Amino acid sequence: MIKTDILIIGAGPTGLFTVFEAGLLKLKCHLIDALPQAGGQCSEIYPKKPIYDIPGFPEILAGDLTRNLLEQGKQFEPGFTLGERAETIEKQDDGSFIVTTNKGTQHQAPVVAIAGGLGSFEPRKPAIEGIADYEDKGVEYIIKDPEFYRGKRVVISGGGDSALDWSIFLTDIASEVTLIHRRNEFRGALDSVEKVAELTKLGKINLVTPAEVKELHGDGKIEAVSYVRDGETIKKETDHFIPLFGLSPKLGPIGNWGLEIVKNAIKVDNSLNYQTNIPGVFAIGDVNTYPEKLKLILCGFHEATLMCQAAYRIINPGKKYVLKYTTVSGIDGFDGSRKEAPKAVVQAIN
Amino acid sequence: MIKTDILIIGAGPTGLFTVFEAGLLKLKCHLIDALPQAGGQCSEIYPKKPIYDIPGFPEILAGDLTRNLLEQGKQFEPGFTLGERAETIEKQDDGSFIVTTNKGTQHQAPVVAIAGGLGSFEPRKPAIEGIADYEDKGVEYIIKDPEFYRGKRVVISGGGDSALDWSIFLTDIASEVTLIHRRNEFRGALDSVEKVAELTKLGKINLVTPAEVKELHGDGKIEAVSYVRDGETIKKETDHFIPLFGLSPKLGPIGNWGLEIVKNAIKVDNSLNYQTNIPGVFAIGDVNTYPEKLKLILCGFHEATLMCQAAYRIINPGKKYVLKYTTVSGIDGFDGSRKEAPKAVVQAIN
Ligand SMILES: Cc1cc2nc3c(=O)[nH]c(=O)nc-3n(C[C@H](O)[C@H](O)[C@H](O)COP(=O)(O)OP(=O)(O)OC[C@H]3O[C@@H](n4cnc5c(N)ncnc54)[C@H](O)[C@@H]3O)c2cc1C
Ligand SMILES: Cc1cc2nc3c(=O)[nH]c(=O)nc-3n(C[C@H](O)[C@H](O)[C@H](O)COP(=O)(O)OP(=O)(O)OC[C@H]3O[C@@H](n4cnc5c(N)ncnc54)[C@H](O)[C@@H]3O)c2cc1C
Repeated sequence: MIKTDILIIGAGPTGLFTVFEAGLLKLKCHLIDALPQAGGQCSEIYPKKPIYDIPGFPEILAGDLTRNLLEQGKQFEPGFTLGERAETIEKQDDGSFIVTTNKGTQHQAPVVAIAGGLGSFEPRKPAIEGIADYEDKGVEYIIKDPEFYRGKRVVISGGGDSALDWSIFLTDIASEVTLIHRRNEFRGALDSVEKVAELTKLGKINLVTPAEVKELHGDGKIEAVSYVRDGETIKKETDHFIPLFGLSPKLGPIGNWGLEIVKNAIKVDNSLNYQTNIPGVFAIGDVNTYPEKLKLILCGFHEATLMCQAAYRIINPGKKYVLKYTTVSGIDGFDGSRKEAPKAVVQAIN
Repeated sequence: MIKTDILIIGAGPTGLFTVFEAGLLKLKCHLIDALPQAGGQCSEIYPKKPIYDIPGFPEILAGDLTRNLLEQGKQFEPGFTLGERAETIEKQDDGSFIVTTNKGTQHQAPVVAIAGGLGSFEPRKPAIEGIADYEDKGVEYIIKDPEFYRGKRVVISGGGDSALDWSIFLTDIASEVTLIHRRNEFRGALDSVEKVAELTKLGKINLVTPAEVKELHGDGKIEAVSYVRDGETIKKETDHFIPLFGLSPKLGPIGNWGLEIVKNAIKVDNSLNYQTNIPGVFAIGDVNTYPEKLKLILCGFHEATLMCQAAYRIINPGKKYVLKYTTVSGIDGFDGSRKEAPKAVVQAIN
């Protein structure tokens, strides 16, 4: 059982900044995310694209924002359960909650902050008969750890940035990379498309277009795929088949937690601290809704900050909290680090 | 008469970010500030100190944040009335407001956003008889434009960062710099104190401590000051006497605008768009209050953003606004500039 002060569901920008604000209040956080990495939409959908409306950044790449937020919260030592989906929540007699993931990992906390964005990112799966039987037996829809493919033969399928970028990346790791796409045209960043073209010429990527994987073979695990090109069916031996057709967010199990849902989002009390209809459970960032809600990153930051104040009071009943400016008080990390502004000196001249 | 869409009172971080968010909605802003420069508390009180809780910045100097916010809003060409205090507001028959400053400058806008922080910064004045008669006649409490002192003799009085830093700065501009402080000890950044010591040794700053200016002389304008040191009164000729004893914020005239004031702050409806009890007048940032309010920079950013949506509806009645992500739509500056994310290509390989 993982125990923490604030259990955050969703490691997007909102969840990540919560770690920092909670840390200022000496509260510890643990984050669960269905994706194998932090950053939410920013890292899954548009890591290399610039955002122009983060206050103080005339321009910042979404991937850099994620890195900065991780860095900003680092000294408060957040825990992570990545690659797992929060599935159920149960209120305990002591008022705390136990949240269990689809893999059975259990987490307990007095406060739950749902920062689930548009929902947990779930892969779009190709309609190939029997594919479910091979899941985690050679078929993966998300690459969690590229090292897993070292020395292995992989067949990647897809025509977007993920398929392009992972094909490039795995050429240095896998023993053989085959990229199958049903069109000749790929849709992605110019340099990714060009790099795949180059690696194809060098024989490092085995590019098969226009073609579609139609059948999977193997006894208990993938041993080969069959694809169709120009009406012809070709069997290709492989250790892994990785369809990268994009991930789409689904509110999913959270929808059944007894929370008040309006238009696929969780209704919260925005006149106070973004608490849901279940006391102790808050919803912040894209996942919540209230009159005049804007699904913007900067709004999630504010919501997280106010929510942490409420969490503080739940966790420290009766204790009075006085707001301190970080500039004035500095920051004491849970890792023993200390940041502080240079102090003014009082010094005689002459 | 200066006309604009949103008239912003206060050019602190909240006011500055409003320019950007309004610009995204094609609304133009004009800012009034009592200080000669933008940045509010950040530039007046702690420009060289790090802030740790601006989301996405593990650390940023308050002065750099101000610069970044100015840069972020630049393409929306805000107007500025600096060094003037907004004094009165009058509602017009057409629903717009006219705001007049202490210097008589008039501004008209359909929406007024008060981002006045802790109030307009007013200098602490030394208790020297008749000093008011010399104001703007050789006595200045704020340095608006250092060039004003070129070739002139200046006497600066004070023992903090402002007195130290302006003494240093003016050695290159004024013909003579005298720094008078009632103690031998100065209180400021280490490097400022050291620099003043060095310039004193070089004879570029004429340092007089412990001493106090007690009398002002001159006919219609300052010609000399008398200070007392060790019980002795010494007369010193000068063109300017600049007491830099700090600025303290005062809600001031805004307190008489008919707004609902609670504990020196303006009550707003935080469940919607931070509107005050006067429709069309909003209050954002440190200046407002509502249940669970936190006087933090990041909260002002969120409040400004939601407020701009309401301003849009007042200015464009009946027009529907659809939120667009800056990443997706890019930014069209009022100055003709365009920022946009690199587009994905659709390109064949082979
Ligand atoms: C193309 C694009 C461009 C954008 N441009 C801008 C822009 O310019 N400015 C701006 O402000 N915003 C922009 N946005 C929106 C911005 O990305 C979102 O507002 C932001 O990501 C919301 O952050 P979040 O942390 O609330 O949620 P998300 O980023 O959506 O993160 C939520 C996370 O929670 C996880 N999760 C959800 N449910 C579960 C569960 N049950 N178990 C485990 N994990 C779960 C998800 O996997 C996800 O990682 C853009 C979005 C897109 C798609
Ligand atoms: C030492 C110190 C450290 C701080 N550290 C932090 C920190 O670490 N993190 C954080 O988030 N916050 C911090 N703060 C608070 C932060 O600076 C404020 O929250 C922020 O400046 C508020 O921004 P604002 O734009 O709302 O108001 P302000 O910055 O106060 O700006 C308001 C402006 O309005 C002007 N004004 C007011 N009335 C009038 C009028 N009638 N006419 C003309 N002009 C007027 C004022 O002159 C002023 O320039 C700190 C503050 C101080 C003093």
